[in-house]
Amino acid sequence: MNQDQVRNLSAAFGTITEHWQPRRLTSVNDYDVKIAKVAGEFVWHAHPDTDELFLVHAGELTIQLRDGDVRLGPGDIYVVPRGVEHCPFAADEASIVMVELQGTVNTGDVGGERTAPLQEL
Amino acid sequence: MNQDQVRNLSAAFGTITEHWQPRRLTSVNDYDVKIAKVAGEFVWHAHPDTDELFLVHAGELTIQLRDGDVRLGPGDIYVVPRGVEHCPFAADEASIVMVELQGTVNTGDVGGERTAPLQEL
Repeated sequence: MNQDQVRNLSAAFGTITEHWQPRRLTSVNDYDVKIAKVAGEFVWHAHPDTDELFLVHAGELTIQLRDGDVRLGPGDIYVVPRGVEHCPFAADEASIVMVELQGTVNTGDVGGERTAPLQEL
Repeated sequence: MNQDQVRNLSAAFGTITEHWQPRRLTSVNDYDVKIAKVAGEFVWHAHPDTDELFLVHAGELTIQLRDGDVRLGPGDIYVVPRGVEHCPFAADEASIVMVELQGTVNTGDVGGERTAPLQEL
């Protein structure tokens, strides 16, 4: 049934409690649409081979860049270009949507303990 | 200035008055994020080489498929698989976001008078 394939953003965020654990909502060709709740500071990293789109669903997200911060509120979209170091930060909890090439790892080129496997939702 | 690259969905939709005229908001690698206001019925078509993601920002969108309709409201996401015939319809005005491979034409494989060049926003 086609209607069963519809994903609702608010409903999907309602099923998430952990922070910085990306879930795959759907895909377009070989691009994943992922959602996550975030709070606090992530780690500085870059994705050498792919851009990364952030769309804020709820809350406020700051994407720290080496040459200045980008502040995002609900409905704001920002694309971090490939290879650009960034470090997401949210003073309070934020709900974010990401669109990126399949296989993109959340910690990019740095790895480490904040690396999270992509989970299905 | 990085902050200047931020696009806000509500603000972007506020600049649009015509229907079925897609605007490019931003891109992720070779994928475009487009927005459009729609009302009434579009045309039956398919995109043989690419999936097409629809996200409803405001209003209600029905995506008619040969084997049944998909009804979408605010925050709903649906991906029309490549090659699947579909015909979007909105009884009242709806504001929609699309994510698709660069070069995807709105009327897909059928062309005709509803074909609209992608405009920058």
